[in-house]
Amino acid sequence: MRKVYDAVIVGGGINGSSIAFQLVKRGYKVAVLEKGKIAGKASGAAAGILGAQTELTEDGPLFQLACKSRGMFPTLVPELEELSHVHIGYENKGMYKVAADEDQELELKRLIESQRKAGEQAEWLSINEVIRREPSVSDKLLGAMYIPNDGQVQAYDLSLAFAKASRALGAEIYEYTSVSEFILKDEKVHGVITDLGEFLAESVIVATGAWSRMLLEKTGLSLPIIPVKGECFSVVAEKPLVKGTIFSHGCYIVPKQSGRLVVGATVKVNSFDEKVTLEGISSLMEKAKNLIPDIANAEWERAWTGIRPQSADGQPFLGEHPACRGLYIAAGHFRNGILLAPATGELMADILEGKTETSNPFELSRLESLVHM
Amino acid sequence: MRKVYDAVIVGGGINGSSIAFQLVKRGYKVAVLEKGKIAGKASGAAAGILGAQTELTEDGPLFQLACKSRGMFPTLVPELEELSHVHIGYENKGMYKVAADEDQELELKRLIESQRKAGEQAEWLSINEVIRREPSVSDKLLGAMYIPNDGQVQAYDLSLAFAKASRALGAEIYEYTSVSEFILKDEKVHGVITDLGEFLAESVIVATGAWSRMLLEKTGLSLPIIPVKGECFSVVAEKPLVKGTIFSHGCYIVPKQSGRLVVGATVKVNSFDEKVTLEGISSLMEKAKNLIPDIANAEWERAWTGIRPQSADGQPFLGEHPACRGLYIAAGHFRNGILLAPATGELMADILEGKTETSNPFELSRLESLVHM
Amino acid sequence: MRKVYDAVIVGGGINGSSIAFQLVKRGYKVAVLEKGKIAGKASGAAAGILGAQTELTEDGPLFQLACKSRGMFPTLVPELEELSHVHIGYENKGMYKVAADEDQELELKRLIESQRKAGEQAEWLSINEVIRREPSVSDKLLGAMYIPNDGQVQAYDLSLAFAKASRALGAEIYEYTSVSEFILKDEKVHGVITDLGEFLAESVIVATGAWSRMLLEKTGLSLPIIPVKGECFSVVAEKPLVKGTIFSHGCYIVPKQSGRLVVGATVKVNSFDEKVTLEGISSLMEKAKNLIPDIANAEWERAWTGIRPQSADGQPFLGEHPACRGLYIAAGHFRNGILLAPATGELMADILEGKTETSNPFELSRLESLVHM
Amino acid sequence: MRKVYDAVIVGGGINGSSIAFQLVKRGYKVAVLEKGKIAGKASGAAAGILGAQTELTEDGPLFQLACKSRGMFPTLVPELEELSHVHIGYENKGMYKVAADEDQELELKRLIESQRKAGEQAEWLSINEVIRREPSVSDKLLGAMYIPNDGQVQAYDLSLAFAKASRALGAEIYEYTSVSEFILKDEKVHGVITDLGEFLAESVIVATGAWSRMLLEKTGLSLPIIPVKGECFSVVAEKPLVKGTIFSHGCYIVPKQSGRLVVGATVKVNSFDEKVTLEGISSLMEKAKNLIPDIANAEWERAWTGIRPQSADGQPFLGEHPACRGLYIAAGHFRNGILLAPATGELMADILEGKTETSNPFELSRLESLVHM
Repeated sequence: MRKVYDAVIVGGGINGSSIAFQLVKRGYKVAVLEKGKIAGKASGAAAGILGAQTELTEDGPLFQLACKSRGMFPTLVPELEELSHVHIGYENKGMYKVAADEDQELELKRLIESQRKAGEQAEWLSINEVIRREPSVSDKLLGAMYIPNDGQVQAYDLSLAFAKASRALGAEIYEYTSVSEFILKDEKVHGVITDLGEFLAESVIVATGAWSRMLLEKTGLSLPIIPVKGECFSVVAEKPLVKGTIFSHGCYIVPKQSGRLVVGATVKVNSFDEKVTLEGISSLMEKAKNLIPDIANAEWERAWTGIRPQSADGQPFLGEHPACRGLYIAAGHFRNGILLAPATGELMADILEGKTETSNPFELSRLESLVHM
Repeated sequence: MRKVYDAVIVGGGINGSSIAFQLVKRGYKVAVLEKGKIAGKASGAAAGILGAQTELTEDGPLFQLACKSRGMFPTLVPELEELSHVHIGYENKGMYKVAADEDQELELKRLIESQRKAGEQAEWLSINEVIRREPSVSDKLLGAMYIPNDGQVQAYDLSLAFAKASRALGAEIYEYTSVSEFILKDEKVHGVITDLGEFLAESVIVATGAWSRMLLEKTGLSLPIIPVKGECFSVVAEKPLVKGTIFSHGCYIVPKQSGRLVVGATVKVNSFDEKVTLEGISSLMEKAKNLIPDIANAEWERAWTGIRPQSADGQPFLGEHPACRGLYIAAGHFRNGILLAPATGELMADILEGKTETSNPFELSRLESLVHM
Repeated sequence: MRKVYDAVIVGGGINGSSIAFQLVKRGYKVAVLEKGKIAGKASGAAAGILGAQTELTEDGPLFQLACKSRGMFPTLVPELEELSHVHIGYENKGMYKVAADEDQELELKRLIESQRKAGEQAEWLSINEVIRREPSVSDKLLGAMYIPNDGQVQAYDLSLAFAKASRALGAEIYEYTSVSEFILKDEKVHGVITDLGEFLAESVIVATGAWSRMLLEKTGLSLPIIPVKGECFSVVAEKPLVKGTIFSHGCYIVPKQSGRLVVGATVKVNSFDEKVTLEGISSLMEKAKNLIPDIANAEWERAWTGIRPQSADGQPFLGEHPACRGLYIAAGHFRNGILLAPATGELMADILEGKTETSNPFELSRLESLVHM
Repeated sequence: MRKVYDAVIVGGGINGSSIAFQLVKRGYKVAVLEKGKIAGKASGAAAGILGAQTELTEDGPLFQLACKSRGMFPTLVPELEELSHVHIGYENKGMYKVAADEDQELELKRLIESQRKAGEQAEWLSINEVIRREPSVSDKLLGAMYIPNDGQVQAYDLSLAFAKASRALGAEIYEYTSVSEFILKDEKVHGVITDLGEFLAESVIVATGAWSRMLLEKTGLSLPIIPVKGECFSVVAEKPLVKGTIFSHGCYIVPKQSGRLVVGATVKVNSFDEKVTLEGISSLMEKAKNLIPDIANAEWERAWTGIRPQSADGQPFLGEHPACRGLYIAAGHFRNGILLAPATGELMADILEGKTETSNPFELSRLESLVHM
């Protein structure tokens, strides 16, 4: 089998699917190659927080990219839902980043100031004010940074929507298709070899998350991305316990439809192991009860893991391979893959088309300096 | 334990939950008593067809009730979604009732005429026209009656939404709570006894579907409702195979989100047995392939059953107990429980309040004549 | 439908199935009526401990019955496995009832002495000796009472084996069949009415666990049995962490095949609610880590509940109805239903045949005195 | 991370685990590297038939290996069960290879003769005799070749038992560990590179089933093995429908414990896709009903797939890499991976130790001639 495309995307997670969506909209003939099922790994495991101001704390290029990406959701979601027939569950009810002690309170107040300077909304709420808005939150907390614009989605459904919307516009999606080699010639990529044949393309984009390092070693590139396992669980409360997401050091609680609450996430560095451990759940439960005591009475549902890709400097790699023309990389989004997917898709499409106006801070030229970190 | 309410509803399926919703909106203090989980039986198993003109073929009170109920969805769904935080998946993309032979074609054409006289929209489409609109439909069919107004919902989610919206407005929902006896005195109900105590109420409404007969025998009433098992399954197609529901003799195919297709349903009379049989699935598959040949390539998902309540004359019982004031019955909706739920809730609330203007054709006074059927 | 039997057993849990097995072996024509699926409630949820000396601490009739029942397993298990083609997973690797403080140590040493006097084996092991045998046990414990003869089974599989062995010998098993009424005449039972017809029989045995009280109220009997919810979970360790069962105040850990460990059980009085709560799991996890610290690294599997029947005096009711000849009761086994099933089956068959030599300490004549407790 | 072993086995399926078991018993320091979970692919999906005389029809080296391997089960199973605490469900109740028409009858009779000449037991049974032994078999069949010595196991449990027994004897099992490269020097293997570090070893054995071709391409070897998808399903009958396995052209029915029947398997060439299709199930159901009509009433359980490795000449590759000392291959068992696992483990251990007395008919030297096929 030998097929020819404008662009082949390796990896059917949320970022690969978002890139496919942008490229197919711009008229490219696109194939997505996924070794398992669409959104079967980290993308489907994520809690779906859009925490531009919660997860990212300092102004800078990544903060700007995150805020921009967050801003794309209100128009993107209805477009995707229409094309894909998938309900994405986008909600924009704000996020509470709580303080458990005075150090955290000071830190959050400092953060509010810095984010306001960067033009974003955020405010400090006393614990009384937090409880007035979210009566189930623990009164042992000191207060919270409230971020009105950080929302959430159903991560798996958003990933699926990107893939299905792409397919509706003409992209081809190949599940259970593993890439074994890149077809390289004269420092230029010409396609990939899979277990079932060749896919030729002008451009190949690698968006394989925590598995990117291994794949790219075939090109001689040692990408500093490590796998970080995160364990999560969900429970269902009789009545919705909170409207907004509650975010703290080491634990967040995300309210989903029907009273469901997703609680995440542990951080286990350098692990591809997808097992949920007793300790992982147990430690998250203790933290969750400290945030929302009534969660103790919620009904247990299930637990799962995701393997997230952490880069050496905490920034994703979004750019062309340093030694191989036509080969692009979009990986290393760590805990922000869902949030960053819309902007990643757009940025990667711009990069392919040479349309990035200013210098791209996420390009791989910084690799050299990273080696010395 | 002894609790006092205005109205106690026995049965947390879709009709019990819809009645609770109407009553709580009218200011009643309401409890719903469910022996298992909300929507755990037929309501959660239904394919969610709103087939007012598909399932019901002759004009008459039930047809009128069905059309009225169908018309309530567009305003009801957003109200429920807002209150319950449940996504109901309401879609209104029409229904195709197909003809496989000339007898069926004649019958459908006759039906179109009769429904048009009753003021409803319906039209005959040649098989070419059907395929133009729904290219995956088999060209071995002769054509279809097209009903633009028959839509569908996620049946489980709608049931849950009724229950959660009721709770949000103050209703109390008791799961895992079985009613063992009615508290009766002087031909008037005063409440029920459950495994965990008494629930006193001015009005008690029995909405326990196929299980209604057994429960009401405690009051000396022999309600002619039998259980009819229906088996269903779902598959997921890569691309959505149809937009509208395809309905035929013995098989319907309902398109859900993400390419999912629900295929139903077998008809096994007098069975409470919830087992899915090999033969049940196998026979549905053959029928489904005759309607949409490409469904053969769809991915298998799962199979399940629902136990539907069929009444002796095919009409639901919606009214007061013939010998016991304050005790109401809403049961026997057979395959139309989802469709009829909105109107059932409203009608039952009107009956409790003595507001039904004209004579109610679904009342239990017809029981006497049914005995002689 | 009208069917005639020698004996009808209401309830297809482990005790109903064991009674069926004994009766069919003695030549009775037997039917088992189960409202859901065989072993679908507490019998299928149990961890399968055969803790004659662990759960029951004082000598007396129940202790004697438990030891006798435990002694029946070695011959019963191969017989059932042969007839039913079900693997029961019977293991006899002993039980460690551990002491966490000096009070518990004293209590256990006293217990050892008392059980030895009753003719049973038990010995005190220092914590060093416990760890020598079971290296994963926490060294913060003080020691353990070791009971070599307390073993375990797969509770669901044993229940299924009783039912399938009975069927193989000619018993009829009706699943999804609810009993609505007893057929009573002249203070004698003549059968039962179900949702699908009458089952006539000389003898009717009620073995419906926590649901027995409600059912027997139809006969005017108020049986003092309450439902007690128990939550459990299972994990899988890479290597088997223990060979014997570890039993403590409020938590036991039972090693199953393939490294699986079942951890139980919470105690929630007066609840038919089958939901697993976050707090239930969380509290068990803390206790389990105190017994076997390495369980923290085991892989999470799943959680579930069982509703156990607790009687007012802690003894099961095994005997004839005080006011209705031919109606027998076998209920109230609380946490010992699996252990007691073999002896219960035999004793109930003896009672039906009038073969009990001495007075039966579990008969219902004690009900009168219980009312005054 | 850098670890040193005597032998590293790539692939934790049944053959990799069996090889590990033999090597660890011979004193080797062994590691098994599995990219997912132990027995997570074809080994866990197999129906567990030990069809030495059913699957393999002609005498020859593979037939001899299969018969030898089958003969190892009676002593191997108790050894593995003792070491692993896994119940393997080994049963030896014979196999019926049925004839549906006269051509098939002639073919089977010819086969019986040829196998008897090879020293194996087999006999022709008229359909009356088949039905006398297995009353549920269809009387529309003409008869069957009866093979008393072909039995079955629980395939997943046997695979797990090999792995856990190996671990109990000191082998190290690494799940979620992918091999990216072989460490090669001077035409000799020195270990492998995984996503989490290096595993050095004197010998590396590749036992990765259908995924072997891709992995070995890194060594310049193009192994002619293709993936063949097989779909299966299981149902549960009230009473066991058959005691022996029923085997026909295109469908087999394997009786498991508790009345469960496993029905397999479709044959879809060149597919790594693990999706079960509607057509796959539907076609198997039709075939199964022709073999055992009463299976129509059995309760549906679930469906799944396995990806089996088919080699160009139908024989597995068991031997050393033609161009790389120390690198061994054990792959291409197609539908006989479970049956051949015991002998594969022993043969590969012998090959590593240079103990194979005679010439090995499965070695890779035949590759050259295969290219010309």
